Amino acid sequence: MSSIIQLTRGVPAIESFPSARLAECAQAVLAQAGGVILQYGKSGGYPPLRALIASDADVDEGRVIVAPGTLQLQDFCFHALLEAGDVVYVEEPTYDRTLTLLRRRGARLVSFPLEDDGPDVDDVEARLRGGEKPVLFYIIPDFQNPSGTVASTEKRRRLAALAERYGFWIVEDVPYRKLRYRGEEPPALFDLAPNGVIQMSSYSKQIGPGLRVGYVILPESLAPKLLKYAEDTYISANHLDQAIVSEFIQRGWLAPQLAALKALYAPRLEAVLAALEADMSELGKWRKPDGGFFVGLTLDKPVSTDALLARAKEAGLILTDGRGFFASGSGDGFVRLPFCALTPEEIREGISRLAGVVRVLS
Amino acid sequence: MSSIIQLTRGVPAIESFPSARLAECAQAVLAQAGGVILQYGKSGGYPPLRALIASDADVDEGRVIVAPGTLQLQDFCFHALLEAGDVVYVEEPTYDRTLTLLRRRGARLVSFPLEDDGPDVDDVEARLRGGEKPVLFYIIPDFQNPSGTVASTEKRRRLAALAERYGFWIVEDVPYRKLRYRGEEPPALFDLAPNGVIQMSSYSKQIGPGLRVGYVILPESLAPKLLKYAEDTYISANHLDQAIVSEFIQRGWLAPQLAALKALYAPRLEAVLAALEADMSELGKWRKPDGGFFVGLTLDKPVSTDALLARAKEAGLILTDGRGFFASGSGDGFVRLPFCALTPEEIREGISRLAGVVRVLS
Repeated sequence: MSSIIQLTRGVPAIESFPSARLAECAQAVLAQAGGVILQYGKSGGYPPLRALIASDADVDEGRVIVAPGTLQLQDFCFHALLEAGDVVYVEEPTYDRTLTLLRRRGARLVSFPLEDDGPDVDDVEARLRGGEKPVLFYIIPDFQNPSGTVASTEKRRRLAALAERYGFWIVEDVPYRKLRYRGEEPPALFDLAPNGVIQMSSYSKQIGPGLRVGYVILPESLAPKLLKYAEDTYISANHLDQAIVSEFIQRGWLAPQLAALKALYAPRLEAVLAALEADMSELGKWRKPDGGFFVGLTLDKPVSTDALLARAKEAGLILTDGRGFFASGSGDGFVRLPFCALTPEEIREGISRLAGVVRVLS
Repeated sequence: MSSIIQLTRGVPAIESFPSARLAECAQAVLAQAGGVILQYGKSGGYPPLRALIASDADVDEGRVIVAPGTLQLQDFCFHALLEAGDVVYVEEPTYDRTLTLLRRRGARLVSFPLEDDGPDVDDVEARLRGGEKPVLFYIIPDFQNPSGTVASTEKRRRLAALAERYGFWIVEDVPYRKLRYRGEEPPALFDLAPNGVIQMSSYSKQIGPGLRVGYVILPESLAPKLLKYAEDTYISANHLDQAIVSEFIQRGWLAPQLAALKALYAPRLEAVLAALEADMSELGKWRKPDGGFFVGLTLDKPVSTDALLARAKEAGLILTDGRGFFASGSGDGFVRLPFCALTPEEIREGISRLAGVVRVLS
């Protein structure tokens, strides 16, 4: 066990990376299609991968863009769809890097607190009735980053209906959706409203983030604008990486890879939930997700985040600043616990150290 | 010979791509460092490649960002350094995709006509004296895209001195600099003013554009801002591609690759210059570069570009719209001739068809 425990970034376990298989794929695609892959390519992505994704989602290929990660696709969307000052709805808490991009674009953020089953939809409806309509609502409905929350089917239906009635886009970010370790999968927002949802996902959590391969499925009306934005930004994307992913899928290696990830991560989820139950039940509350990368912990007594991070560091525990996930600027007492890249032993020790620090500060 | 001749995009010859060697490199780096390459990485680029580039330029590593192509690095620079309405100087003609990014950013473009030895520096100086100072001047001093122009050493010195005196950045884009087929290399602007020049280049024309590996060397004062912009946009870049390039260089394969490219492209440059001499000497003027990808042709009698493109297409010749390279909106009668991806026979046939079309239209 490492003496310092990193309860910080939502990264996959290094031991999960299928390096040898990816090397085989690289060799195969360069031998078969080196001339295409190494030349400038299509701005929508490497055609075989784009076709696979489109067929999987049952949409026309023209609605798919494969790009170097979903964060960059968000940047494209925010630039192509927003003007400075436009209203954007977000969950609270939500992915900190998305907030950074939205602020960089000059968006006016309106945040909706997450309940156990997703954002407070009554509040959303009240805001819409009040006339404060957003251009888009950024949502991570499955195993949300940073809280682990899963939106209920009922809330998904209500959100999809509201988007249609009031005319705003839902940006549905689902990088963790396929990493469900137990329980039943609710419908995706995209399945409920295929023409009103911009759905994004990536292979970062399924194969390896270093490949930088993410994708978006766009409503037909938005696809040309986003494709032009992508082409204007980088001509074409990293097609070798995309070709490797395409080959990996075509060889049938994605399903066993996902099975291996679930076998590796499920005990880690159990470990974090059990450790929280054992050490933190009188100190805070948390959601109990059935998958993903994160459990979000909210301390019962808000503490100064600066003091928490400093004390944790002294105790050999590196935490992320919870305030970064809150558009409203609150977030003291929120701790994101990413559990996938730690062994169960490290998780138990980390939570134990955290409980010790919180007790001292409370 | 293909029946339709593409005198359009500045792409490398497909037969130049070292696919097998790149596959070997991919296998080696994934075996040696798969855990690092497939994980999220540093926003400044894959450390070994970043170190190689820094050492080559004799600068601190912190001043280098390796990214998916120089176009995207330009986008980073324009976002990080410009506000809407800021003045930017460009050569006329210049790279059309850069103009698109600058317009997208809301820059106010001031363009300086290219003479045989680079931009009209007297005009630049007059503008500066007049008080219209730019935030940056975007220049392609070597084998300029689209004209083929090489800036003289004297003009480079004057530009470097003006940038220092008036306090603006020079963005020096040098993707073709290492593809000199004959003659002597003038100093880079970066060599003349290492703290006032943002120098960009890439492996797109040296190895293959599909890899998407470009880099920038930044003045120390700008590096942190640009690094943050890169990280906020995509977390980290396509490190597998960068690792492959790094391995390719470390194995000593870049020098023979450049030698092979020069051997392949030099006769193509000769062919385009000879064909112009034979067929176009009474119809237009052109520069006679010693390297690069392009010869820019200016017709003596301006013709309607729409008519030129349409007639050329009828004659089995695909041309790029020359107007896209002119910030001022002019450009009728300018034809960019990229010669690297065509055989000498195709070049001769293409120029012959072009001459026929121009004669009909003049």
